[in-house]
Amino acid sequence: MTDSRHTRIRSTARDVAQALGISQSTVSRAFTEDASVSPQTRAAILRMAGSMGYKPNALARSLITNRSKIVGLVSGSGGNPFYADALQRFSQHLQQQGYQTLLFTAPAGHDVDALLPVVLQYQVDAVIVLSAPLSAAMAEACERANTPVILFNRALSGAKAHTVACDNVGGAALVADWFAALDCRRPTFVAGRDDTSTNRERLQGFTSRLRERGMPLWRVVAGGDFTYEAGYRAMQTLLATPGDAPDAIFFANDIMALGGIDALKLDQETAAAGLHRRPAIVGFDGIAMGGWASYQLSTIVQPLEEMVAAAVRIVTDPPPEGQLVEAKLPGKVLVRASAPAAAPARPSVSPEQSARAAVL
Amino acid sequence: MTDSRHTRIRSTARDVAQALGISQSTVSRAFTEDASVSPQTRAAILRMAGSMGYKPNALARSLITNRSKIVGLVSGSGGNPFYADALQRFSQHLQQQGYQTLLFTAPAGHDVDALLPVVLQYQVDAVIVLSAPLSAAMAEACERANTPVILFNRALSGAKAHTVACDNVGGAALVADWFAALDCRRPTFVAGRDDTSTNRERLQGFTSRLRERGMPLWRVVAGGDFTYEAGYRAMQTLLATPGDAPDAIFFANDIMALGGIDALKLDQETAAAGLHRRPAIVGFDGIAMGGWASYQLSTIVQPLEEMVAAAVRIVTDPPPEGQLVEAKLPGKVLVRASAPAAAPARPSVSPEQSARAAVL
Repeated sequence: MTDSRHTRIRSTARDVAQALGISQSTVSRAFTEDASVSPQTRAAILRMAGSMGYKPNALARSLITNRSKIVGLVSGSGGNPFYADALQRFSQHLQQQGYQTLLFTAPAGHDVDALLPVVLQYQVDAVIVLSAPLSAAMAEACERANTPVILFNRALSGAKAHTVACDNVGGAALVADWFAALDCRRPTFVAGRDDTSTNRERLQGFTSRLRERGMPLWRVVAGGDFTYEAGYRAMQTLLATPGDAPDAIFFANDIMALGGIDALKLDQETAAAGLHRRPAIVGFDGIAMGGWASYQLSTIVQPLEEMVAAAVRIVTDPPPEGQLVEAKLPGKVLVRASAPAAAPARPSVSPEQSARAAVL
Repeated sequence: MTDSRHTRIRSTARDVAQALGISQSTVSRAFTEDASVSPQTRAAILRMAGSMGYKPNALARSLITNRSKIVGLVSGSGGNPFYADALQRFSQHLQQQGYQTLLFTAPAGHDVDALLPVVLQYQVDAVIVLSAPLSAAMAEACERANTPVILFNRALSGAKAHTVACDNVGGAALVADWFAALDCRRPTFVAGRDDTSTNRERLQGFTSRLRERGMPLWRVVAGGDFTYEAGYRAMQTLLATPGDAPDAIFFANDIMALGGIDALKLDQETAAAGLHRRPAIVGFDGIAMGGWASYQLSTIVQPLEEMVAAAVRIVTDPPPEGQLVEAKLPGKVLVRASAPAAAPARPSVSPEQSARAAVL
């Protein structure tokens, strides 16, 4: 303990109220986000509180109540706008529920294991892990520290963690249906980081549904990671042998697909490749850039708002102890110019399959 | 105070160390991010700490030391990737300096005034305001609460706040020099939100330098806000009267310029406008998407990494009390295809001006 703590006299909310001739509850409300206090009154109260040395102390309150009302949000680094959007929505949703967000960013290429012990020191009520790898051992450590872990769009087999994700397998199957309805013969997958569950599940959902439909997967190209540049390079690889070009490409995420579209455009402009027709291109995520006029990307849209709400609900309204939430929310087909709407099903498709294709 | 606080027996770091037969300092290091503890040891310590109910308490520590080592980062909402990038860098820089980031997101269209009282309750060591408007009254309230406020890329006249920004006036003047060197006759500005200092300063720097060079500003088009859609619409407005089309356009930020490029492309494809030549297009920020093949946007790049470092330095190494930092870092010209490199200066340009143009 430092001396300053003992020598400093702290004013109280009552002191501030008396000095201003207002009620103590008005002072309290000035320090609460949504309360009905006019900007002028709030400014006056804060000014007086400042000059009197009064600060309500949320940290002290959290020590007393054993609930910090703080959530640790652990994010990976990288430029995928999908996760920037998710981060912003998490911050807003948590705020609306009276929670604060303590943000941790994993350095590029690292998992978040080294960060978690620091997060736990802040007595967070929960840890939400976004777009960053986490080990099962560390998830278990959190669980033992009695801090629930929520994995967002990440699966971790054997981990004692809640998960909220888009149904990647189901969404990827919709792409296979779509390509089938377009009568594509050379369906191709451009993979992202192969150590992620999103990539594995999207490949698996795509491949399984193609197999069910008796369509062979034409090719899988490794992108390396989930970036624009990776998608661009993958498309260059696909165009390197023109006779071998695919007629339908499913990119593991949207931003890769944008890179792919750009590489394809450049190639068509220079007329280097003898493509019979422009391949259908579909992404996964639903980022804003996919709607830009240069791309008009067809994609599977993740229900981001609902996913964030579901994850925040685990914090505000936790399930009974020992029970783990596993929420998988369905993605939706969004048709733009990069892949046309599904044509009427071809004769060889079963009625059940054709009904499925019709929802496209 | 709740009962649970009294009935619960808290283990100490020493208890955990004894149980594992290791030193207490190893236990401490396991709870610190960068310490040299193997993942296995860390996991074992966390597991034991969890089962014994031991948690080091950063919140309690901050009450004792009167320093929370927490920084409040207040961000606006919106989809500008420049601020998503800034946010990520702030989080990483602060983390590296042993600070944590408490994130607050202002709802769209609101200023951050209502959030600040909540931020102050967390005894933050400083408040960094990113891409969101703040009132001078509120900045003063923070100052009275003895909490330094750092405005990032925002100026607020009369506010008792530190500011770290790109030199918007100087950067915009570089664009005027550039257009002059390209011998443009109809330099045009597409404005973002007109209540922001970034927009005002960029317009001012552009106009002043044009005037210095005896070039009239051809036109100012109001974009409305700093979005892709606003840039797209502004370009449509500019193309609506073909004979009146500009030959050089400075967009108030990059993402607007991308919208403008797309609107221009579409227009050229439909051959609706009788443009003599493609106008030179320059943005401001340096976002990653500007480098995408569909855009190849020429721009003024903000030195984001240096700006973030400068803002974090105010937190870690504060100036003497009462002294306000006002840092303005210069932007740099980045030439891509949307505006060609400056041609040799035309004869009417003075030697001093031609030297300036040469650095383009």
